[in-house]
Amino acid sequence: MPVEIERKFLVKSSRWRAGARACAIRQGYLSLGDGATVRIRIAGTEAFITVKGKTQGLSRAEFEYPIPLRDAEVMLETLCTRPLIEKTRFSLEHAGKLWTVDVFEGENDGLVMAEVELTGPEERVALPDWVGEEVTDDPRYRNSSLVSAPLGGLALVDAELSSGV
Amino acid sequence: MPVEIERKFLVKSSRWRAGARACAIRQGYLSLGDGATVRIRIAGTEAFITVKGKTQGLSRAEFEYPIPLRDAEVMLETLCTRPLIEKTRFSLEHAGKLWTVDVFEGENDGLVMAEVELTGPEERVALPDWVGEEVTDDPRYRNSSLVSAPLGGLALVDAELSSGV
Repeated sequence: MPVEIERKFLVKSSRWRAGARACAIRQGYLSLGDGATVRIRIAGTEAFITVKGKTQGLSRAEFEYPIPLRDAEVMLETLCTRPLIEKTRFSLEHAGKLWTVDVFEGENDGLVMAEVELTGPEERVALPDWVGEEVTDDPRYRNSSLVSAPLGGLALVDAELSSGV
Repeated sequence: MPVEIERKFLVKSSRWRAGARACAIRQGYLSLGDGATVRIRIAGTEAFITVKGKTQGLSRAEFEYPIPLRDAEVMLETLCTRPLIEKTRFSLEHAGKLWTVDVFEGENDGLVMAEVELTGPEERVALPDWVGEEVTDDPRYRNSSLVSAPLGGLALVDAELSSGV
């Protein structure tokens, strides 16, 4: 079974920006239940439907399939839970690992979150100096939570942390 | 937007059987909410993920994508709501239209339901003499309802109707 293992961090400076590649992401959820979540995502000009299982520790079953862009637009518009998540995803390398930094817009405006995918739960990762608090286990920072309880206001209180971005 | 327009009927005799092609179907739901439903289906050796919107009159938005059989098996086993729906789908032609007859097993054992897909909400369809009560608008006979409230017991009370199958 395909499994996603990742660690998530808040971001405390903008030193990650240089050389990072940007991609606009718009996504929404068809299902946000306790069991599986089903996400529709448009990333640049590509679109996907993604099924994720329950998080167990750091890992989570994940099944992702490309779908026509037009289908994704209609499903985001007519079927997905409000609000949609809008963010710019920046990709960069640090110490041989691919990191992504998500800069949120819309109802989560002000939130900036970094993620790194691990090859296994035991892998040790060199943390860049621009990452702050780890939020891997904090349910408030799941993308699905950012729909049901957006963090725009909260993130702005932490403006000092995210001031660079 | 792809839209599904169909009419559903109970089946009152087995006269549809001759020449019908059979296909084993196993399906489950990742989401059964008031909004979109998300279904995983294995039909014979093919597998699909299907998103359906709310029913509006006879029609309903539908998006279906083929997925690897193995992914579908894992999602049915680990992520879908219980019980799964198991049925044999028979396909046949009547008066130039394709009809399907679903013979349910498992928790809906005894239920037999016929469906015909329309090209538009105004299309008139010649009904075969083996169809009984129309249940298009009866929410109990939605596949998603057959998970949350299986009709095995109820269908057996109507044994007279389905005695031929």
